[in-house]
Amino acid sequence: MEHGELGTFLLAFAAALLGAKVFGELAERIGQPAVLGELFVGILLGPSLLGLVPLSAGILLVAEIGVLLLLFEVGLETDLEELARVGGAAMAVAVVGMVVPFASGYLVTRAAGYPTLTAIFVGAALTATSIGITSRVLSELAMLKSREGQIILGAAVADDILGLVVLAVVSQIAATGSVALGDAAKAAGLSFGFLLIAIVGGIPLGRILVKVVGKAQVRGILVAVAVAFALLAALGAQTAGSAAIVGAFAAGLVLARTNRGRDIETAVRPVVDVFAPVFFVAIGAQVDVAYLNPSTPANRAALLLALGLTVVGVLGKFAAGFAAGGKVSRAFIGAGMIPRGEVGLIFAQIGKQNGALPEPVFVAVVLAVFATTFVTPPLLKALRPARAGATKS
Amino acid sequence: MEHGELGTFLLAFAAALLGAKVFGELAERIGQPAVLGELFVGILLGPSLLGLVPLSAGILLVAEIGVLLLLFEVGLETDLEELARVGGAAMAVAVVGMVVPFASGYLVTRAAGYPTLTAIFVGAALTATSIGITSRVLSELAMLKSREGQIILGAAVADDILGLVVLAVVSQIAATGSVALGDAAKAAGLSFGFLLIAIVGGIPLGRILVKVVGKAQVRGILVAVAVAFALLAALGAQTAGSAAIVGAFAAGLVLARTNRGRDIETAVRPVVDVFAPVFFVAIGAQVDVAYLNPSTPANRAALLLALGLTVVGVLGKFAAGFAAGGKVSRAFIGAGMIPRGEVGLIFAQIGKQNGALPEPVFVAVVLAVFATTFVTPPLLKALRPARAGATKS
Repeated sequence: MEHGELGTFLLAFAAALLGAKVFGELAERIGQPAVLGELFVGILLGPSLLGLVPLSAGILLVAEIGVLLLLFEVGLETDLEELARVGGAAMAVAVVGMVVPFASGYLVTRAAGYPTLTAIFVGAALTATSIGITSRVLSELAMLKSREGQIILGAAVADDILGLVVLAVVSQIAATGSVALGDAAKAAGLSFGFLLIAIVGGIPLGRILVKVVGKAQVRGILVAVAVAFALLAALGAQTAGSAAIVGAFAAGLVLARTNRGRDIETAVRPVVDVFAPVFFVAIGAQVDVAYLNPSTPANRAALLLALGLTVVGVLGKFAAGFAAGGKVSRAFIGAGMIPRGEVGLIFAQIGKQNGALPEPVFVAVVLAVFATTFVTPPLLKALRPARAGATKS
Repeated sequence: MEHGELGTFLLAFAAALLGAKVFGELAERIGQPAVLGELFVGILLGPSLLGLVPLSAGILLVAEIGVLLLLFEVGLETDLEELARVGGAAMAVAVVGMVVPFASGYLVTRAAGYPTLTAIFVGAALTATSIGITSRVLSELAMLKSREGQIILGAAVADDILGLVVLAVVSQIAATGSVALGDAAKAAGLSFGFLLIAIVGGIPLGRILVKVVGKAQVRGILVAVAVAFALLAALGAQTAGSAAIVGAFAAGLVLARTNRGRDIETAVRPVVDVFAPVFFVAIGAQVDVAYLNPSTPANRAALLLALGLTVVGVLGKFAAGFAAGGKVSRAFIGAGMIPRGEVGLIFAQIGKQNGALPEPVFVAVVLAVFATTFVTPPLLKALRPARAGATKS
């Protein structure tokens, strides 16, 4: 690494960490989840304002490591049996949470006078759910292990897998004007198949690994091997057409079932503390405040469309929450599915690149993605069911 | 980060971690420090053999984070008073350890028939000491807090600071044929001055920081703020013309003197466990085994020169150990100063770029750097003074 490059990276990393903690603390003091402060400080420190945290390759790599380890930690804290028990409800939430936002996003964009292909891409961008944001807030609210938390987590994982299939499908439509549904079904099957095989095959593998590691003496072997296991699972998930974070989550689920699960969790915790904040700050840093200025005529159309997309984006996921059934807070589940986060941004970026999203629509989608992301922490906090069922995580 | 790029990075990171731990464990089983196994597996996994760990920007960034946090941890484990007490001895070791290897490296290169400028660069490359390798072995041998360990550490820090001044001087000679000694003295003064000010000013600052952090509630704030502090100190050291790792070390020294020093050390430990191995594996990965083949005629001259440089490189640092004086194991101290590691490689790279080092001499310097690096862990292990003074770190 170049001398000057290293300096910029060190400053950005330190600024992201300090900013995340100062604003995280402030957010908690006003009764909000800390992650809201981290997202917010990202806007401040990002390229469109102070420029202390540029979206450089180094910072994005640290952010990527951060979110992978965060999902690994969430997996370590998750009870696989409980997750399997809520599997049906989670799948219903995921599917409704994709269909309703897709349809309503499509209709809003068509109503605004844009062509079919644009409307399809906008609808697709609204199907996403950011596991990172949601799981972080659930953890802060000590709701990760509640029934609601497990349904949200399961639905978000399913959503992430289905979302990448949807992205492949709409990209194909944009490129060729048609779609091979058989290929899409195969991709979806492959992604879910990987997750299933990773968990079923991973459990005995994890136990063997922990046993072998137990015989070793060298310093730090447990945490190093556990992290390597998570990285390889992330690689496997990505190779199977799923998202890397889904693999890291699965690795956590698997290692939680070994007799060293608790030790791994304890060791991974400070690593997450150092890297995950950079992920949330980097998401905030992607907000370009110039787009928020309504005195620019081009922004007004985008802001209006963004408002429409945000409304259907929020209502569509609340509808998903009502698909959960059973004795749970459906509003809380719906709220948990709202943040589009980094996943929605990826959709917007690809739609812009392949020409499906003209500039004002791209801006509107990005704004709607951020609006849904920023609204989630306070919404979840407000809708948190006040009952004894929630165990402190 | 691109999809394929992320995959390559995940594989490389996982391979480095698993390789480091497997070979680290094997090294310990044959009575060697684990770091020797990590260096060795780097050769295996590196581009010249298996190619699983490429020297990509991502891996080098993780390695950089790893060595910074390692030196931060070493600083946290170091007693500043003890370090100051051995300051004179450390400075004597550092100076002799630069003068003798420089002079003998110069003479060997001249005797081999190379011009003055080449010989100056070779001599300069032999002045370096890798704090990373040395502190890691000291820590493994539980000698970090011994008098010998403190002298080595202090001398290595002084060496790192002086080494960068030497690098600036010889680069200037290569570029202009002459040198402004006043500038060199100024650069040296600035680097030492930064370290002094960082420590003197850092101690009250660290205490204030820990006090403020103590009032905060948000998760992970202590470790996040401590790491940010280390990153900023690294940036400051680099800006002052010193090495980033010297700043990270100073940050550790300073935070060790707060009432949360022990907590920070505990939290930083698993982070080091996950990142530092990548640093040592990446050093090994820079060995190009093709150079070791004596059947290539060009390699024979390089191998012969490398042998000569290794011999004077080892003997020169043993001479430095004898400058320590007092009731200490001087051979152990000398051995601790031997590894050139990443610092020596930087000298070689720059000498190659500016034309001071023709290809065979460059190869010889690189080989000598690796030879001194690989020989240190077993040497230190063999020379470890067997007395009660060494406390388990």
